[in-house]
Amino acid sequence: MEFSVIGGDMRTVRLAELLKADGHEVRCFGLEKGGSRVLTNEASLGKALRGAGYVILPLPMGGGEELNAPLSDAPISVRELAEAIPPEATVLAGKPEGVFAELARARGLCVRDYFAREELTVRNAASTAEGAVEILMRELPVTLLGARILVIGFGRIGKLLSLRLRALGADVTASARKCADMAWIEALGLRGADTRRLADAVTGKTAVVNTVPAMVLDREALTGVPDGCFLLDLASKPGGIDLEAARELGLRAVRALALPGKAAPETAGAAIRDTLYQMIKESDENELECSQWKG
Amino acid sequence: MEFSVIGGDMRTVRLAELLKADGHEVRCFGLEKGGSRVLTNEASLGKALRGAGYVILPLPMGGGEELNAPLSDAPISVRELAEAIPPEATVLAGKPEGVFAELARARGLCVRDYFAREELTVRNAASTAEGAVEILMRELPVTLLGARILVIGFGRIGKLLSLRLRALGADVTASARKCADMAWIEALGLRGADTRRLADAVTGKTAVVNTVPAMVLDREALTGVPDGCFLLDLASKPGGIDLEAARELGLRAVRALALPGKAAPETAGAAIRDTLYQMIKESDENELECSQWKG
Amino acid sequence: MEFSVIGGDMRTVRLAELLKADGHEVRCFGLEKGGSRVLTNEASLGKALRGAGYVILPLPMGGGEELNAPLSDAPISVRELAEAIPPEATVLAGKPEGVFAELARARGLCVRDYFAREELTVRNAASTAEGAVEILMRELPVTLLGARILVIGFGRIGKLLSLRLRALGADVTASARKCADMAWIEALGLRGADTRRLADAVTGKTAVVNTVPAMVLDREALTGVPDGCFLLDLASKPGGIDLEAARELGLRAVRALALPGKAAPETAGAAIRDTLYQMIKESDENELECSQWKG
Amino acid sequence: MEFSVIGGDMRTVRLAELLKADGHEVRCFGLEKGGSRVLTNEASLGKALRGAGYVILPLPMGGGEELNAPLSDAPISVRELAEAIPPEATVLAGKPEGVFAELARARGLCVRDYFAREELTVRNAASTAEGAVEILMRELPVTLLGARILVIGFGRIGKLLSLRLRALGADVTASARKCADMAWIEALGLRGADTRRLADAVTGKTAVVNTVPAMVLDREALTGVPDGCFLLDLASKPGGIDLEAARELGLRAVRALALPGKAAPETAGAAIRDTLYQMIKESDENELECSQWKG
Repeated sequence: MEFSVIGGDMRTVRLAELLKADGHEVRCFGLEKGGSRVLTNEASLGKALRGAGYVILPLPMGGGEELNAPLSDAPISVRELAEAIPPEATVLAGKPEGVFAELARARGLCVRDYFAREELTVRNAASTAEGAVEILMRELPVTLLGARILVIGFGRIGKLLSLRLRALGADVTASARKCADMAWIEALGLRGADTRRLADAVTGKTAVVNTVPAMVLDREALTGVPDGCFLLDLASKPGGIDLEAARELGLRAVRALALPGKAAPETAGAAIRDTLYQMIKESDENELECSQWKG
Repeated sequence: MEFSVIGGDMRTVRLAELLKADGHEVRCFGLEKGGSRVLTNEASLGKALRGAGYVILPLPMGGGEELNAPLSDAPISVRELAEAIPPEATVLAGKPEGVFAELARARGLCVRDYFAREELTVRNAASTAEGAVEILMRELPVTLLGARILVIGFGRIGKLLSLRLRALGADVTASARKCADMAWIEALGLRGADTRRLADAVTGKTAVVNTVPAMVLDREALTGVPDGCFLLDLASKPGGIDLEAARELGLRAVRALALPGKAAPETAGAAIRDTLYQMIKESDENELECSQWKG
Repeated sequence: MEFSVIGGDMRTVRLAELLKADGHEVRCFGLEKGGSRVLTNEASLGKALRGAGYVILPLPMGGGEELNAPLSDAPISVRELAEAIPPEATVLAGKPEGVFAELARARGLCVRDYFAREELTVRNAASTAEGAVEILMRELPVTLLGARILVIGFGRIGKLLSLRLRALGADVTASARKCADMAWIEALGLRGADTRRLADAVTGKTAVVNTVPAMVLDREALTGVPDGCFLLDLASKPGGIDLEAARELGLRAVRALALPGKAAPETAGAAIRDTLYQMIKESDENELECSQWKG
Repeated sequence: MEFSVIGGDMRTVRLAELLKADGHEVRCFGLEKGGSRVLTNEASLGKALRGAGYVILPLPMGGGEELNAPLSDAPISVRELAEAIPPEATVLAGKPEGVFAELARARGLCVRDYFAREELTVRNAASTAEGAVEILMRELPVTLLGARILVIGFGRIGKLLSLRLRALGADVTASARKCADMAWIEALGLRGADTRRLADAVTGKTAVVNTVPAMVLDREALTGVPDGCFLLDLASKPGGIDLEAARELGLRAVRALALPGKAAPETAGAAIRDTLYQMIKESDENELECSQWKG
C-alpha cells in the first residue's frame, strides 16, 4: 500500500516507521524534527501526496487553518493540504473537523476518523493509565505500595488505572456517579466513592487522580485535601481540578495530557497502525460507503 | 417500608431476611420450603399483599400462568396475583413479561423491572464468574494454576471470569468478536482469540468456558477440543456448546445456570436488596413516571 | 528406567501413569482400587520389585508395620517390603521413618526422602492454597469477593493462599509472628495482624483459615469469632483450631488435610514425578553418596 | 527517647523528622544540606551526642576513616565520632564495619546493625522493586503492558519485581538456579528460566533486569540480547551485567543502586524508624546482651 503521512508528533513518526517496516511505501511531510533514521521527508506537500492510496493526518489533526504538525520545519496549511490530496485517496485523520472537514466535504474526499475507533480509545486508555502510574511514582516521596489513592471517574482510564494501582499495592478508592459503575468498582474488588460527594473521599489521601472532563475538585472541595497530597489531572482542558486554587492552597498539582505519545510513543504508533489496518480491512471487506463524517 | 415478597428461590429468601433485618415490615407468600428461621409465610396471597407498599416478585418471575415459585407449597397463579395486588403498590419484578405483564398493564399497576438494572447485572456477573471458578476447581483433576483455559466471549462475565482465572495462575485466552473487546483483552494483559475462529483457540486447552448466548462450539468445532478437556457452558438455553455432541465425543461438558443464587445466595440476596433500595430512592427523588415497561 | 511403585493414594496412581507415559517400565503393587486403565498390578510384592532400579514408596509412607496403601486389596507389611527390595535399588520414599527406616538402614538400602525436597513442598503449598479456596467457595453462602478473611500464618501456604484470596476480591488479613513475615505481608500489599493477638483480628470476619501447626485459636480465642464465620484448619493434626470448642460455640469448622491429592491428583502426581526426576538427575550428576537419612 | 542522628542521606533526614514528629528528642549533626524545615543541626559532634540514649549512624555507615555523610557541610571523622559517643548509649548503625567497628569494640560500645534486620531488607526490596518499575517505564519507548521482560534472580527483589511487572501486564520470565525457587516461580504463575542458561531467555526481550550479585550477563551472553533491549542492573557493584560490553554492543544499559532512598525517601525513612523501634523494643523486652557484631 502507498501511504502519505503528513504532520503529527512522535507517535506519527513511529507509525510511519512501522508502516515502512511492514513493507509499504511511505512518503512523509512535516516530520523533519522527528529525528527518524529511516524516514525521509519529501520536499513538498505535492510530492508527498502524489499517488497516495491513503493519506494519514495527525491525531488530533486540528480544526483551524494550520495542521497539527509540531515536528515540521514550517507550518502546514490545511487549505493547501485539502487541495493537494488526490481525489481517489482515502484520508485517515484523527478527529477531522473545522476547516479541513468542510473543505474535504466540498471536494468529496473520503475521510475517516480513526480517533473515533473504540479499539484505539481503549488502547490509549491503557497507555494513559500506565503513564499516570509513572508520574505518581516520580512525584510521590513514598511508594505506591501502601499509598492511599483516589481515582475520580470509572470510565476506561479510571478502570485501567485503578487496577494497576491496586496491583502495585496501593489502597485505591475509585469514584463514580452511576450505580452500574459502582457495581463494577465492587466487582473488581475496589473501594468506591460517589463523585458527587468527594469531600470525604479525599480525606487522608496520598494522591488524587482525576479522569473526569468536568470540574469535580473546585476550590471548595480542595480545602479538604490533606497537606502533601499530590493532584494529577488527566482530563483534557479545562480539566476537572482547579489547578490554580490547588497551588494557592499549597498543593502540588499537575495536568498531564497526551500521555500515550509521551510515555510510550512506539506503543502509541503501533496502536494507530493496527487501527488503520483494521479500518482498511473493514472497508475492503464490506465495501462500506464512506459516510462516517464528524464535524 | 412495607414489602410483600411473593415466590422465588433462595435468593428471595435471603432478600426477605435482609429486608426484615433492616427493620422493614415483610410479608411472605410461597417461600415455605426455604427453611428460613426468621420469616413467616402468610396463609393467603391476600393476606400477604394487604397494605403492601412494594410487592417483590421473583427473578425471573416467569412469563406464563404460574409464578416462578420453587419453594412454594402450592403453585401460585399469576392471574390471581395480578388481581390481588393493591393498585397503589409498586411492583418490583425480575423480567416482567407475558401473562403478568399484560394483566398488570390492563390494571394500570406500576411495575418496574429490577433485572433490567445494569448494577444488578454486573453484580450477578461477578457472582457467576466466581461460581464458574468453583466449578472448574471441583471438576478439574489439575489445579487452575498452570491450566490453559479458553473463555469464549468478553462481556461482563467473560471479563470478570478471565481476570479471576488469570489471578489464580491459569494461562487464560479470552475470545471476542469486536475490535474494541480485543483491545480490552489486551489492555487487561490477557491473551486473545477470535470467537469466529475457535478451532485454533481450543487446541491444547484444559478447559473451555462459554459465556456467549449463541452456538459457538458446534459438533464440528468440538472435534478440535483435546481429550480430557472440560467444557462449561454459562450461556442460558439453548447455550453455546453442543452438549450432546460433546458427550458423544467423550468430552465432559456441563451447563451451569443461575450461579449467583446457587453459589452465593446471601450475596445474591444482598445485591437485589441494594438494587431495590436504589430504585425506590430514584423513584422518590425524581418522581419519575412509571413507564419502564418490558414485554 | 525401571520403577516399582508400591502402595499410596490417587497421587501415586497418577504418578505411576505419568512415569509409564514417559516411556519407563512401571510395575505396581497395592494400587488395585485406583481404577487406572493403564496400570496393571503385579500378583506379588516380589514380582513388582524384581529388577527395579527405583522403588517408589508413598507420601507419607507411614512409620509403623503397615505401609500407607489405602488403594491396596490387602495390607502391605513394611518388613516384607524392606526384605524384598533389591539391594542395588534406590528407594524414593515420602518421609521414611520408624520401622521401615530402621530395617532399610540395617540392610544398607539407599533411601531418599522426596518429601524433604523444598520444591515439592512449595508445589504442594500452591495446590493446598487452591484447594482451600475451593472449600471456602463451596462452604460460604457469600462470594469471596467482598468477604473478610483472616489467614493465620504466613509460611508458604499462608502466602500463596492470601495472594489468591486477595486476587479474587476478598479483604484479606494475614497474621504472622516474625517482623520479617510482617514486612512480607506489607510488601505484598496485604493487611497484617499478630498471630499472638488474634482477638481483634477475628472480629467481623467471614472466614478464618489456619495454616499454623500449633493451637492458635483455642476455646477462649474462639469466643470472639462472629456468628456465621466459617473456620478452616489446614494444619496437620492436632491442628491449630479447637474444632470441638468451635462446634460447641455453634461455629462451622472444618479440618482439611492432604488437599493436593484430593483437589488436584494429576497436578500432585506430576509434582512428585518432576521431583523424582530431579533427585535422580542430581544423584547421577554429582555421584553423591546416599546419606540423606531421616528418622 | 533521646536520639542523636549523625550523617546519612535523605532517608536519614526523613527518619530524623519522623522521630521528632513522634515526640522524641532528636539532635542532628551532618545533615545541613538536607533542607529540612523541622530539624536543626548542632554546632559540634559533641553537642549532638551529649546525653544521647541512641546514636543513629547512616546506612551504610562506611567502613573507612570518614562517615558516609553526603549532606554534611564538612567531613565527619569516624575516629572522632567513636571517641565522642557516650559509653552508655546504644549505637544503631547500618552495616558497622572497618575502622568504626574496631574502635567501638575497643571502647566496649554497644553497636547494633539495623541493616542486618530481615524486615528492613524486605521493605527495601519492595521499594527497590517499585523503583525499578519506574525506571523501566521511563526508559522504555513502549508500555510495560505487553512488554517481554526477563528478571534474573528470584530472591526478595526478583519476586516482588516480577509480581509487579506481571500485574502491569508485562510478559514476565523470572530466572533462578535452585529447584525450590523454580517451584516458587511456578506457584506464583510466572514463566521460568535457568539463570545458568540465559542465552535462550534473553531472546526477544524488551528489557532485562538483573538482581543477582554475580556476573550473569557477560560479553558473550550479551551478544544474544536483541537490539533495542534495555538492560537494568540492580545488583550492587561490581554488578551482574557487563555494562561496558553492553554499551559497545549498542545496548542501553543502566545500573541503579540505592533505589529506596532515591525513589521514595519518606517510605525508606519510615522503614528504618520502624526497624529501630522494633530493635529497641526487643532489646528492652529480652534484655539481650549486646553481641550482634559485624565485621
